[in-house]
Amino acid sequence: MQTLQAVLDEIVAEMSAQADRGEVATYIPQLGKIDPGKFGIAVVLNDGSSAVAGDAEEPFSVQSISKVFTLALALGRVGDSLWNRVGREPSGTPFNSIVQLEREEGIPRNPFINAGAIVVSDILLAGHQPREAIGEILSFVRTVADDDTIVIDADVANSERVTGYRNFALANYLKGFGNLHHAPEMTLGVYFHHCAIAMSCLQLANAGRFLASAGMVPSTGHTVVSSERARRVNALMLTCGHYDGSGEFAFRVGIPGKSGVGGGILAIVPGVASIAVWSPGLNARGNSMLGSIALEQLTRRMNWSIFSSRSA
Amino acid sequence: MQTLQAVLDEIVAEMSAQADRGEVATYIPQLGKIDPGKFGIAVVLNDGSSAVAGDAEEPFSVQSISKVFTLALALGRVGDSLWNRVGREPSGTPFNSIVQLEREEGIPRNPFINAGAIVVSDILLAGHQPREAIGEILSFVRTVADDDTIVIDADVANSERVTGYRNFALANYLKGFGNLHHAPEMTLGVYFHHCAIAMSCLQLANAGRFLASAGMVPSTGHTVVSSERARRVNALMLTCGHYDGSGEFAFRVGIPGKSGVGGGILAIVPGVASIAVWSPGLNARGNSMLGSIALEQLTRRMNWSIFSSRSA
Amino acid sequence: MQTLQAVLDEIVAEMSAQADRGEVATYIPQLGKIDPGKFGIAVVLNDGSSAVAGDAEEPFSVQSISKVFTLALALGRVGDSLWNRVGREPSGTPFNSIVQLEREEGIPRNPFINAGAIVVSDILLAGHQPREAIGEILSFVRTVADDDTIVIDADVANSERVTGYRNFALANYLKGFGNLHHAPEMTLGVYFHHCAIAMSCLQLANAGRFLASAGMVPSTGHTVVSSERARRVNALMLTCGHYDGSGEFAFRVGIPGKSGVGGGILAIVPGVASIAVWSPGLNARGNSMLGSIALEQLTRRMNWSIFSSRSA
Amino acid sequence: MQTLQAVLDEIVAEMSAQADRGEVATYIPQLGKIDPGKFGIAVVLNDGSSAVAGDAEEPFSVQSISKVFTLALALGRVGDSLWNRVGREPSGTPFNSIVQLEREEGIPRNPFINAGAIVVSDILLAGHQPREAIGEILSFVRTVADDDTIVIDADVANSERVTGYRNFALANYLKGFGNLHHAPEMTLGVYFHHCAIAMSCLQLANAGRFLASAGMVPSTGHTVVSSERARRVNALMLTCGHYDGSGEFAFRVGIPGKSGVGGGILAIVPGVASIAVWSPGLNARGNSMLGSIALEQLTRRMNWSIFSSRSA
Repeated sequence: MQTLQAVLDEIVAEMSAQADRGEVATYIPQLGKIDPGKFGIAVVLNDGSSAVAGDAEEPFSVQSISKVFTLALALGRVGDSLWNRVGREPSGTPFNSIVQLEREEGIPRNPFINAGAIVVSDILLAGHQPREAIGEILSFVRTVADDDTIVIDADVANSERVTGYRNFALANYLKGFGNLHHAPEMTLGVYFHHCAIAMSCLQLANAGRFLASAGMVPSTGHTVVSSERARRVNALMLTCGHYDGSGEFAFRVGIPGKSGVGGGILAIVPGVASIAVWSPGLNARGNSMLGSIALEQLTRRMNWSIFSSRSA
Repeated sequence: MQTLQAVLDEIVAEMSAQADRGEVATYIPQLGKIDPGKFGIAVVLNDGSSAVAGDAEEPFSVQSISKVFTLALALGRVGDSLWNRVGREPSGTPFNSIVQLEREEGIPRNPFINAGAIVVSDILLAGHQPREAIGEILSFVRTVADDDTIVIDADVANSERVTGYRNFALANYLKGFGNLHHAPEMTLGVYFHHCAIAMSCLQLANAGRFLASAGMVPSTGHTVVSSERARRVNALMLTCGHYDGSGEFAFRVGIPGKSGVGGGILAIVPGVASIAVWSPGLNARGNSMLGSIALEQLTRRMNWSIFSSRSA
Repeated sequence: MQTLQAVLDEIVAEMSAQADRGEVATYIPQLGKIDPGKFGIAVVLNDGSSAVAGDAEEPFSVQSISKVFTLALALGRVGDSLWNRVGREPSGTPFNSIVQLEREEGIPRNPFINAGAIVVSDILLAGHQPREAIGEILSFVRTVADDDTIVIDADVANSERVTGYRNFALANYLKGFGNLHHAPEMTLGVYFHHCAIAMSCLQLANAGRFLASAGMVPSTGHTVVSSERARRVNALMLTCGHYDGSGEFAFRVGIPGKSGVGGGILAIVPGVASIAVWSPGLNARGNSMLGSIALEQLTRRMNWSIFSSRSA
Repeated sequence: MQTLQAVLDEIVAEMSAQADRGEVATYIPQLGKIDPGKFGIAVVLNDGSSAVAGDAEEPFSVQSISKVFTLALALGRVGDSLWNRVGREPSGTPFNSIVQLEREEGIPRNPFINAGAIVVSDILLAGHQPREAIGEILSFVRTVADDDTIVIDADVANSERVTGYRNFALANYLKGFGNLHHAPEMTLGVYFHHCAIAMSCLQLANAGRFLASAGMVPSTGHTVVSSERARRVNALMLTCGHYDGSGEFAFRVGIPGKSGVGGGILAIVPGVASIAVWSPGLNARGNSMLGSIALEQLTRRMNWSIFSSRSA
């Protein structure tokens, strides 16, 4: 069997040969400027070892991947009462759809579509000023990554604020149904800032380790969520982490993953590894095109699919 | 750690104490007659050992669980071209919804909602008379279960034919979009018959072994699908196996599963075990109420969730 | 002011110069064979006088226009209890949509979309064999037109039966909700046959006179519906008679009208005239393209819009 | 035949005996305070005579009825180019639905649902400050009513601003699709203020005269819109003026009408009369319950339905 490093190097080589790299998201000007030729991948194993290849140490905007961390933090804050305000089912609709909200009277289908993540931000805002809530989220991400150099890109956050009319629509709509407890612009302030967290693949893979390790950050031994909660977040990533492309990702890649429009994907092999991949071009469903392909290659070669008979 | 048998016995005892057992499906008269007090569970491990408890050897109507077997058989027949006619995404709508079909012009969201399974039946009918296609499906189920005593309950099949107006609507609708190649009543003849296969929990768990064993039937050594295909069927069971309750099942139970309105659930722990549970009362989403709870208990006590850090 | 005949002649001349004549419906082979160059118009005034121009005496398939007559007949049969099974609101969706039915649990939005007209056929079938019900409908049309030469085109009726999968889907769906009291193929037998009634523009305009004359057939003095009922059928034609193009027709033409995919339109100027126009090419909403334009010209030149200040 | 005054007096007497008066809208606190026992009606004939009964000279919040005037004004400003940004079809959905907007990519179905009226407000804001645009709308209403005492209730306007999350959602959603040219809060400032215009039944009936008189204000002889435009606004009121109760209103009452959640309805008998009725309690579709019943009685007794054979 190849070493993990050899597999990653091979994948980087293959991806560099790909002609069709998808489309870089342009709805936020800062994202539109990114070089579509970038590709990075990082794997951190539960034993503490890691391997990287390509542009794995260059920071990018994690965008919706941050929703994994806000969910974990909010569950720690309010426990399962969170599920009174957000569902746990795949949505069957695009990430920014408002249709489902009307049909289900203001309860977002899951915490990873925009509406659901906005409610999670609203929960984290309770008892705080937006600045404090943002600070707590960043602090949580630094804790799980064991890396105090992670920052928020303020330009990206402000850019979202200016152009995010769909998100303002969602927040006002939630408010109209009573499922937003703060002013829309306050809650969205939190939301836009956590989406603007920047991390490299290596930082992101580190930040995901607790989900591969039963809720514990291996490098510090600090348990940030219970093992049951880590398991459940993984389940939600599998069923809902790629919007209306979640089924396809499960089918092809076979591990929990959460994508962001910045082109990043965080993926978890429970008990084994935390993986981050980055390629800015997106496929039709808004998920990183090469990132998805690379993860499919990786899980196949390492036999990491959670649906395969690993122990057989 | 408790033995598997002790865990099953405990679960049977707990389930017998449950007051709220859900509602038995009544839309087919034959299903409505079943005693709601029934409960059975069977686990077959990859090493060939097994454990059963409760009414585990009493046959029941597997209904939609049969869609797992028709999918596997159809993939063997036509390969990935099947996916030109059926999607791979959770539907976000109930099992018999027709709304999604109109929006997506006759391509069912996945092979486990009724519309998708009808297309799979249509594929299996190609080049055959309905009787032959039904025979092949039954033969496949007997092969994977290594059990020639499994039969189709003709009364149930005929009962569906008489009352299944929604399914006739779906089939005609698919036909209107050109996604049905045979006459609706022919394809539905196949569909109604495979849904009427009767198995006990033990037989059903045996029939699911190939999905836990990389595509091979352990008792015969016969490989019925490739390991990749087994893995992908598992992924589909996880994301789409419980209709619009799939996310909840993944969240709580954490393993691939497929339910039927007869109250059965087939669940797979890849590399480890095939599980079947049966309790006729259904929850609001149309999945076995006690069956779901029992599986949640089982996977928790055995640490079998595919989202947990088993190797950690 | 021009005479009515001069206006009709002018319109025929203008329409013959139109390059874009829309698309002839092809889903029924018999309709696809019609010469798209045909154009006819007939106006019958309440005073008994009439004017025709173009191909006004050539029979064509009235298709959905027949729904006006079945509605009037069914209201006479069961009165306002009809409205327990069919709504009175514009649908906002295409003529053959099934989405609305699911949302509203089997109650079609109005009697002019296919699902609603199928329920009306089902009402007319009560206590009859299909052949008898079809005979009664034809008899009613002959009575209101005062013309015993009107017939049903059996080839068209059979053609619908063979290809009408969408209608079979609708009928089965209605049946699944309990809003069809006969076997789908029986009710659809009635439906397909009344849609296959053939009339010329002149015959159709004659058949519509009772709606312009408070429910009375002027040539015979026979009252077929009450004046209130005639008024209400006119209202339904205005709000629902052109599917999701009804608002546009009201906006441009300004009188009650009912279109058919055969390219005909029946339009009513209450208290003044009954109009029939025929041009086989359809616009994007499935309504006669030139027929709509011709009616817009006619109502403008005659100042016949019911929304204009005629008496001012 | 009774005199008009006798008919109105009779209707007022009948309405005062009605036990079920519907529910007063409470989503704006100022509306919730209104006495549900109020009932007024005013009819202004084209010959200049008028009749009133009940609380016909007490001002109430016209709310959505104002959309008739903003539409007429905007059509005068930008002509038929308005229809590039708003449709002309009944919506089939409630007044504040956002579902249709997503399906049709930001083009509201018609100018009378909230989303459509917000776009009309946006058109009227072009080249102006909100204060100026509001001034122009009020000025137009005063002109058509020939009454300079009509004012905007600032408390109601501010109340809407504070609680109108659904409208903020709609405006932001429109903005996200590029169909709002100003900041949502600017356009909504205009929208909320014109909805807060207060008029008595008599003032409102006067304001509607131009729609019954081919676009001319009878008392001043001033033509404010062309006769064609008046006719078309009437058509839109008929097909879309009562949200998803428009078909029912056309069926029962049979004349163009526009309702508001304040309990008012403006109704037009083209060429004959302008009518205003007010009763604060609403039916399930959000239209004045007694107002609808009263108009049904009035049009029946006066034979004013545009669908009846008046001249017959």
